[in-house]
Amino acid sequence: MTDRIREFLRNRRDDGPCVVVDLEVVRENYFAFARALPDTRVFYAVKANPASELLHLLAKLGSCFDCASVAEIEMGLAAGATADRISFGNTIKKERDIARALELGVRLFAVDCQAEVEKIERAKLLTGAKGVKVFCRILCDGAGAEWPLSRKFGCVPEMATDVLEHAHRRGLEAYGVSFHVGSQQGNVNSWDSALASASAIFRECATRGINLSMVNLGGGFPTKYLKNVPGVPRYGDAIFRALSKHFGNQLPETIIEPGRGMVGNAGIIEAEVVLISKKSDEDTARWVYLDIGKFGGLAETMDESIRYPIRTRHDGADMGPCVLAGPTCDSADVMYEKVPYMLPFSLEIGDKVLIEGTGAYTTTYSAVAFNGFPPLKQYTI
Amino acid sequence: MTDRIREFLRNRRDDGPCVVVDLEVVRENYFAFARALPDTRVFYAVKANPASELLHLLAKLGSCFDCASVAEIEMGLAAGATADRISFGNTIKKERDIARALELGVRLFAVDCQAEVEKIERAKLLTGAKGVKVFCRILCDGAGAEWPLSRKFGCVPEMATDVLEHAHRRGLEAYGVSFHVGSQQGNVNSWDSALASASAIFRECATRGINLSMVNLGGGFPTKYLKNVPGVPRYGDAIFRALSKHFGNQLPETIIEPGRGMVGNAGIIEAEVVLISKKSDEDTARWVYLDIGKFGGLAETMDESIRYPIRTRHDGADMGPCVLAGPTCDSADVMYEKVPYMLPFSLEIGDKVLIEGTGAYTTTYSAVAFNGFPPLKQYTI
Repeated sequence: MTDRIREFLRNRRDDGPCVVVDLEVVRENYFAFARALPDTRVFYAVKANPASELLHLLAKLGSCFDCASVAEIEMGLAAGATADRISFGNTIKKERDIARALELGVRLFAVDCQAEVEKIERAKLLTGAKGVKVFCRILCDGAGAEWPLSRKFGCVPEMATDVLEHAHRRGLEAYGVSFHVGSQQGNVNSWDSALASASAIFRECATRGINLSMVNLGGGFPTKYLKNVPGVPRYGDAIFRALSKHFGNQLPETIIEPGRGMVGNAGIIEAEVVLISKKSDEDTARWVYLDIGKFGGLAETMDESIRYPIRTRHDGADMGPCVLAGPTCDSADVMYEKVPYMLPFSLEIGDKVLIEGTGAYTTTYSAVAFNGFPPLKQYTI
Repeated sequence: MTDRIREFLRNRRDDGPCVVVDLEVVRENYFAFARALPDTRVFYAVKANPASELLHLLAKLGSCFDCASVAEIEMGLAAGATADRISFGNTIKKERDIARALELGVRLFAVDCQAEVEKIERAKLLTGAKGVKVFCRILCDGAGAEWPLSRKFGCVPEMATDVLEHAHRRGLEAYGVSFHVGSQQGNVNSWDSALASASAIFRECATRGINLSMVNLGGGFPTKYLKNVPGVPRYGDAIFRALSKHFGNQLPETIIEPGRGMVGNAGIIEAEVVLISKKSDEDTARWVYLDIGKFGGLAETMDESIRYPIRTRHDGADMGPCVLAGPTCDSADVMYEKVPYMLPFSLEIGDKVLIEGTGAYTTTYSAVAFNGFPPLKQYTI
């Protein structure tokens, strides 16, 4: 919570839940990344929060943008970034979207299989684009991460060499390797084994006459929720040590893609307690229903993965266990039940609550109008 | 799939995934419910699909509406239903929303605790509304249902009597009992035990001088996905038998709230295969990425709950296991992985696929713009 957000909420007249993002915090986060990894370019992961004011600020500060779709590329360009500062980082792209990105000037693309390389080759031929670079994403085990990982993106490192060679043979620039150590990654040493794989791919490609240039270190930088997390400088140190260990004095060009780490702690949701009840007289836990839930912006409570800090006007009072749920008529719209959430006994219907660390992955996850409730409103200040 | 949908898709020019809803199927479904339970009023659960054309059709056919919010109430009224045909069926309501509903003429409200009764009492005093009816929702075990259930709605039956008595003492009409046997309920006999509880509440209230009138039998009527489900007439028979068994010849007024059962089978999503790949040369399962996923309308694949039938132009060809995923850069956007989905080996990138049974709980679950992808488009024909 910042004084600026507190002041904004004091003066707010609107009804319904909202998230307020303090751009000053985003600015500090950007410089923290720039200082911690001075030789690494920052590609902000637009999907975390694509608010126009936020993108304009980051573009002005010098940030590049990691984009998941043509729409996000257009947002990055509209915010003032030139096309050479944009990466089309989604490994799953329609061929016509690749062509559109090439027309917009984008030259850096993620792939994780040969079929995706061939789409880029065809789109390149169609548009006549030159200097098209691809990097291959590799699988990473994601140990230590809090948001559920899957094998959705990337291929095994042994396959990556073939994918990059395929790109090279098809007239694309085999540019490098990317990986993602898992979202909300609490272990600063998680980059080590992925960098070992990356350097092995660099060596194997070199034996095939292909000189890779870049390692995309991905995101995974955490926001502080209920648990403490290491600061950005500790990530910077650990990553630099791992880079030196695996690449010696031939350090590759590097980029990072912070999303949550850039905007998570800059946002606060204000919500309202709609109902507090018990299911039977014997229940020990209260059910606390807010006017925001899993379908209104708090999708990352899925499987109770992210545990947001919640502040109330009763903080410091005695607390008891609560099941926390959203306002919809959907029985899956329950946020914390397996591990009940402790809230003050004096919490009342109509109270406002503040949900911290909600600057990333909230607004865009909102459903369009589930149960007739509007999507989460956002204010950037 | 209907001929009308097939014809519509053949002529469609638009890009990106869409759902097409055939209103003729909805019309048949409405009459199937009306025939199967001739003495029961149908309250369509608007949250399942609030398309204006759909609501207009149902209003014209005589349907009433179960609404989760003021916005849904306004949609029901705009579609031509009078306020006496609307139920505010959400047990979690802001007091100002209750007041707004009363001002709009709505008189039927769901509750599951005393605090909610008191909100309705205060809103009634504020607005001067007369004849305000409340029904109390009770917990149900939901055995046999496919969509994850929780204890989110309802109280234990023993508490319901106190809640209804509280309403009676506060000047509201203690009108009845509601329950929900669980969404996509495949067991036609699931209503039996809930009706036993309801009749016990009727008797207990009678001993306290309160005569309840109505049993809200809820929804839960299934749509056919991959597994066969019983037809509506079998549900009608089983419910009528259970009603007679527990209420004898003093049958209460009854209502049902079909949502999925009314529109699920009326809709088909057309989507596109964006990528097919493997993670390593040894993988047996292919990864098939569509341009729609968990955040673009298929949220009910959460925990792999709902397994949609998927048709391709290669149906009948040899099939192999696939992991099915959406187009976003979100590792949680994977639909079927624990139990792989069988699809033809000849499926290709760029192929269209048809996802059946997607008329309910798709459009409204769509995220506003996650990863820059627009929400699911809908056409009603």
